[in-house]
Amino acid sequence: MTGIIRPSRPRQPERPVRQENLRSLNLELVFRNILAAGHPVSRTELATITGLTRPTITRIAEELLAGQLITETGLTHNGRAGRPRVGLTLSEKGPAGLGLDIRADALAACVVDLTGTVRHLAFTPSTYAGRGAPDVLTRLAHMAHAAMEAMTADGLTVVTATLAVPGPVHAGIVQSAPELGWRNVDAGALLRSAMDHLDLAITVDNQANLAALGELYASDNTLDSFVYVSGGLGIGAGIVLDGQLMRGARGWSGELGHVTVYPDGKPCPCGSRGCLQTYASLPAILSDEPAPAGSTPDAAITGRAEAGSPTTIAALDTAGTTLGIALADMLNILDIDTVLLGGSFSLLASWLTANARAEIDQRVLSAAWAPITIRPALLGPDAAVIGAALTSIDQIRQHPTDWLARQPSRSRHAAPASPA
Amino acid sequence: MTGIIRPSRPRQPERPVRQENLRSLNLELVFRNILAAGHPVSRTELATITGLTRPTITRIAEELLAGQLITETGLTHNGRAGRPRVGLTLSEKGPAGLGLDIRADALAACVVDLTGTVRHLAFTPSTYAGRGAPDVLTRLAHMAHAAMEAMTADGLTVVTATLAVPGPVHAGIVQSAPELGWRNVDAGALLRSAMDHLDLAITVDNQANLAALGELYASDNTLDSFVYVSGGLGIGAGIVLDGQLMRGARGWSGELGHVTVYPDGKPCPCGSRGCLQTYASLPAILSDEPAPAGSTPDAAITGRAEAGSPTTIAALDTAGTTLGIALADMLNILDIDTVLLGGSFSLLASWLTANARAEIDQRVLSAAWAPITIRPALLGPDAAVIGAALTSIDQIRQHPTDWLARQPSRSRHAAPASPA
Repeated sequence: MTGIIRPSRPRQPERPVRQENLRSLNLELVFRNILAAGHPVSRTELATITGLTRPTITRIAEELLAGQLITETGLTHNGRAGRPRVGLTLSEKGPAGLGLDIRADALAACVVDLTGTVRHLAFTPSTYAGRGAPDVLTRLAHMAHAAMEAMTADGLTVVTATLAVPGPVHAGIVQSAPELGWRNVDAGALLRSAMDHLDLAITVDNQANLAALGELYASDNTLDSFVYVSGGLGIGAGIVLDGQLMRGARGWSGELGHVTVYPDGKPCPCGSRGCLQTYASLPAILSDEPAPAGSTPDAAITGRAEAGSPTTIAALDTAGTTLGIALADMLNILDIDTVLLGGSFSLLASWLTANARAEIDQRVLSAAWAPITIRPALLGPDAAVIGAALTSIDQIRQHPTDWLARQPSRSRHAAPASPA
Repeated sequence: MTGIIRPSRPRQPERPVRQENLRSLNLELVFRNILAAGHPVSRTELATITGLTRPTITRIAEELLAGQLITETGLTHNGRAGRPRVGLTLSEKGPAGLGLDIRADALAACVVDLTGTVRHLAFTPSTYAGRGAPDVLTRLAHMAHAAMEAMTADGLTVVTATLAVPGPVHAGIVQSAPELGWRNVDAGALLRSAMDHLDLAITVDNQANLAALGELYASDNTLDSFVYVSGGLGIGAGIVLDGQLMRGARGWSGELGHVTVYPDGKPCPCGSRGCLQTYASLPAILSDEPAPAGSTPDAAITGRAEAGSPTTIAALDTAGTTLGIALADMLNILDIDTVLLGGSFSLLASWLTANARAEIDQRVLSAAWAPITIRPALLGPDAAVIGAALTSIDQIRQHPTDWLARQPSRSRHAAPASPA
């Protein structure tokens, strides 16, 4: 991204790095280098990488160890000459991040530790649509409490939670989640109240955005820019550009379900006509035959398609074609060359991809000289809840000093708290 | 934008701020604060704003004055108590930025100084379509030389140039500019060779992107996120989000002209069907009646519309409606609430806006709770060449130390170069 510095643009006066910040900046620098390494690193290596002195590294490592942000491994050898050294690596105890997700068919909770490993994943299958926000959020609060208790037994402390909702969110308020029947819901406040105002930082964010972050993380270096499409009762998208989520000016980007496919087409509940959602959402593909009781919409659709139902196969063809037309618009606008089909679309991908690809190849200008990839998402329907948990733990990763400030002092300069 | 720190993501090891960088970091800090102030600031004020010592400010001010990056004003008073002080402000001599633009009807050159003031603006009206890149770029090289000579007389030195082209650019190569008949043209190398390899850094960029940067600058604090639509022989868009140009993964974002409006609609030269360009470009609006010799397409269209031509009025109605449908897709995807109609669309805005607005209000999901603004661009057809010149000077603003390193040493520690 590029801007222009404008002389008269009001901005915060910039300030230089000062001595009093240097300590915490250096601590965060060392921590990020341990994080980035992806394998245990010795204090000597850290001194070389960061350019900080060995005594500074030793002091910082002591603080990080005391705060359970890192742990010591046995002797490791970096493959070059020299004697093996004690490695430092991310702790599997200490801080943990909680993710919560409201799906059409289930509530989900997930906890990840600092290393990004999923330590807890739980579901309460049910249909919550129309049940009302306080009811849904009270049930989620119970799941959150259960997750936090289970984690305490493992030596993990959940300090931040991120809640995924299927709709645009602004300043913590869910603007509109038609699948749930919500409008202008302060989901964070309701959840906080249902959790007895426990000391837990709660953030509310869009489901497709969080799922995109989950996929970014899971892709492990192979993806930098992609569009994540979340298919379900509605259709949303999360946009990742250069490793960063593109939220838009107010956090409402990626409304792929309301991209116009046929200007004079089917009416959409949003008030427009011919929106992608009216052709490619699960209800549209199910046409007038809802899933039988006990079956999910995905299972009903794939069952019918495999049995050769002409109605279902035609509906899937239309869904693929219209998805391709809408995605082509998105790719022409964003210049991104990879599409991940997520949510229910990850399960229906084999029925959708060929038609979608045909439209994309014809309609994306750059496809003529640079091919477009379209494939199922890696994490399937769990991407959003895992992405939410990762977003929570990332707050500690970005600002380890905030976590350390919460800890009872354990540095060598303070007497350890004696047991009563 | 938000990302997640991934442990195993390879990245440059981070390094702390070190003594040897501190000098230039502090110089850039002081310079950016003078730039940001928008009015003369005294050395004392700079010391307060930056937290640097008064002797450090004095030394840096001396370097910036010697390099003609700033200049001293007379005594100024900051409105509070205390005696009036000498103010420091951006220099109107010293470095300058050159912008060049290839339009359908003209070649354009522009020079701006450090303050962002346009000091030179020149056009060579002509149709260059199909003339071949070397011919066009040789003529632009003559215009660039003339601009640079004129500026030398004013005490300005042009050190960077930015060339605007109507098409996607990647790594300096113009991928495709159908209006000019170009494909895979290394425009920077051709221009450099036509300028006898003068010591001038040349960058090539997309016209709509540069025009968007020009509008960002011209808006003077009032715009942070907007879509700039460039209407002409083709249709492109520049996307500004949070004050930054969004170029996409490879620099090809904003291909609004190839957003599908009617999937089974008119064939487009790009190989697709129903692209916006086939309904709303100038040739589409002119239908089968080209502009008479000596008249521009815009003038021909407005003349006919004002005379009540039913064909032209119907074509403008279609252009407005289809533009609105395609823009609604763009706004649903990006979450941006302001559209600037630029290029020829700035002149046709009164004929296009009502229909475009009707479609946007119906089709953009967030329009129901947050209104969308659509209005003509401020700089009209000159936005791209001015934006190109501003982009050039911005390289000096971002890195004043690079400019200072080019200067013959004039600090108090070095003897001044004596005239021969």
